[in-house]
Order: sequence, then structure tokens, then C-alpha cells
Amino acid sequence: MTKKLTSDEYSKIISKLRDVQDFPKDGIVFKDITPLLGSHEELNILMSHLVNRYSSYNLDFIAGIDARGFIFGSILADRLGIGFVPIRKKGKLPYESISAKYELEYGFDEVEVHTDAFIGRKDARVLIIDDLIATGGTAKAACELVEKSGATCVECCFIIELEFLNGREKLDKYNIYSVMKF
Amino acid sequence: MTKKLTSDEYSKIISKLRDVQDFPKDGIVFKDITPLLGSHEELNILMSHLVNRYSSYNLDFIAGIDARGFIFGSILADRLGIGFVPIRKKGKLPYESISAKYELEYGFDEVEVHTDAFIGRKDARVLIIDDLIATGGTAKAACELVEKSGATCVECCFIIELEFLNGREKLDKYNIYSVMKF
Repeated sequence: MTKKLTSDEYSKIISKLRDVQDFPKDGIVFKDITPLLGSHEELNILMSHLVNRYSSYNLDFIAGIDARGFIFGSILADRLGIGFVPIRKKGKLPYESISAKYELEYGFDEVEVHTDAFIGRKDARVLIIDDLIATGGTAKAACELVEKSGATCVECCFIIELEFLNGREKLDKYNIYSVMKF
Repeated sequence: MTKKLTSDEYSKIISKLRDVQDFPKDGIVFKDITPLLGSHEELNILMSHLVNRYSSYNLDFIAGIDARGFIFGSILADRLGIGFVPIRKKGKLPYESISAKYELEYGFDEVEVHTDAFIGRKDARVLIIDDLIATGGTAKAACELVEKSGATCVECCFIIELEFLNGREKLDKYNIYSVMKF
């Protein structure tokens, strides 16, 4: 069973988040994770917690979402001794890819994954990770990519969840874990 | 002193690179690193080599260049027990940033770093890392950002160097290390 973060550990991690007003646009308060990335003591608390949670999940791959998901995802994959798969914005992956669309405020965007990303492990068990879940559109598209690839999305992990945006509802088919809720 | 990769280790790493023809445009052969990321055995050989090289450098931060540099950089920072700093494409960082321009084939692009990224360590010693050096423009701009921040760019590390593009010349003020040369 996952050991919960102690309140002291939780306080240390949260002390390294910074609220930035009006980014990326007016009225939005952005949760800046760069102070956490820059301070190994607190980042190590977070990553040790995730290793503790996921070491019993028999995962084959960590799939990180472009671009901040790459940071947490690659460290977690390295610590667990498994492969890392980048899920990228449209047009960034060089090889044959599949894509999934998601809705933006105005229009659509797409994420992609290589068609052979999860090959080599039959019925690969995949954890999707991103720094933050807001409305959940990107994460849902990422889940669809994993499933289209014939792999299983075991869980979606977010460092930060903005609960008031109800992203969780969009992902009701999937297991979700978020470390910090706002 | 850095232990060199054995020819067996080198062969294992290189076996996980994939040449993709005509990406991002006609006539270019792209070095795809995703098979390497997906296979922990070979990625571990590479990362252990980098840890061996850099553990004696007394580094304070690893600065990774958006976005593939995030992957190698965050694993290396984690293994060395030091902070990770993202150097990002223009407009991606939420807090007060400084920027540096670099030339593209037509026009310019910019990379940015937070003004307080290297604060907390006086005269911070920084390693810049990216997956690949081509013409060297992005890396040079990244070096300028580190110096403008009052920190020292101890070395630039690239997993892959495309020697025929002479990127190294643009960085002649700096130490450069590349793992694989083509």
C-alpha cells in the first residue's frame, strides 16, 4: 500500500510551488513548479513518494506529456528501471505516429505517440504522468493514445490537480492520482 | 577522470537510435532517440556514463533545453542530487524571465530562463544539456542565459553531435562534451 506523504513532507513540497498571477492570460493563477524542480531536497521527497506508490504496479512504461510531464516522467521511469515514452504535441515526433484530438477554448489541439512506442512488451502496462490536470482534455487524449496502441493505461498521475475545473470527470474511465489538490 | 564507454556499451546505446528520413523536412535525416528512452537498459548505460563524468564537477544545477533536453537533464540532476532548471522556448515560462535570441534559417527564435533560476547558490556552476547539437544556435543562446544570470556554464553536454554542421565552432568559448558523433 502507498505510504501517504506526512504533513511535513507535503508542506515541504508545496512550499516550492509559486503562484504566478495572470499567466498564461489575465485572471489565471498559474502554479509554477520551477522552484520545486530547482530544489532537489523537495523534489526527492515527491519522487520517492511516487516510487513508493508505483513500485508495486508492475508498470512497463511511463508516458510523460509534453513538456513538463517529461521531467517527472523520466525521473520516475529511471527510478523504477523502466522505459519512458514521450507523448508530444502534434508534429514533434519524427516516426510514424497516431494522434488524438482534444478541445481547447477555441478549436482543437492534438497529441501524438509513436506507433511502436509500447511495442516489445505485450499488453504493456502504462502510467501517464503530467505536472497538472486542469480541464483534463490533454490527459484524456493521452489515455486514448495508449489504448489505441494496444496498451493499458493503468493510472494517470498528476503532481497538481485543479479540482474546480473538474478534469477528473472527463477521465472517469481511468484511475487518477494527484499529489496536491487546489 | 571520466571512464570512457566501452565499445560494447557504445554499440548498445547507438543501436537504440533510429534514423528517420526527411524529418522535419525533405533531405534531413533525423536521429530519433525515442527507442533509447523506451529501453531502460541502454538509457541506464548512457546515464551512468554521464553520472561518472559529472560527479566530480561540483555542479549546482543541470539546465535542460526544451524539450528533449528535459528528459536527459532531469534524470542526470536527480542522479546527481542537484536541482534542474528548464530553459524554455519563448513564452512558456510563467515568472520573470530573461531571453536570448538565436538565428534560424529564416529569422530568429528565442529561449528563456527564469531570472531567479540559479539563485540560492552563489556563483552557481551549471551544466547545460540537450539531446543534440546541430548548428549550435540554441545551445549558444542557452549559454548566454546562464551567464546573464550570473552563473557559470561549466560545460555543454549533448547526447548526439552532428559534426558536419560545425555547431562546436559557435560554442568555442565553452567546454563541450558529446557522447556520440555523426
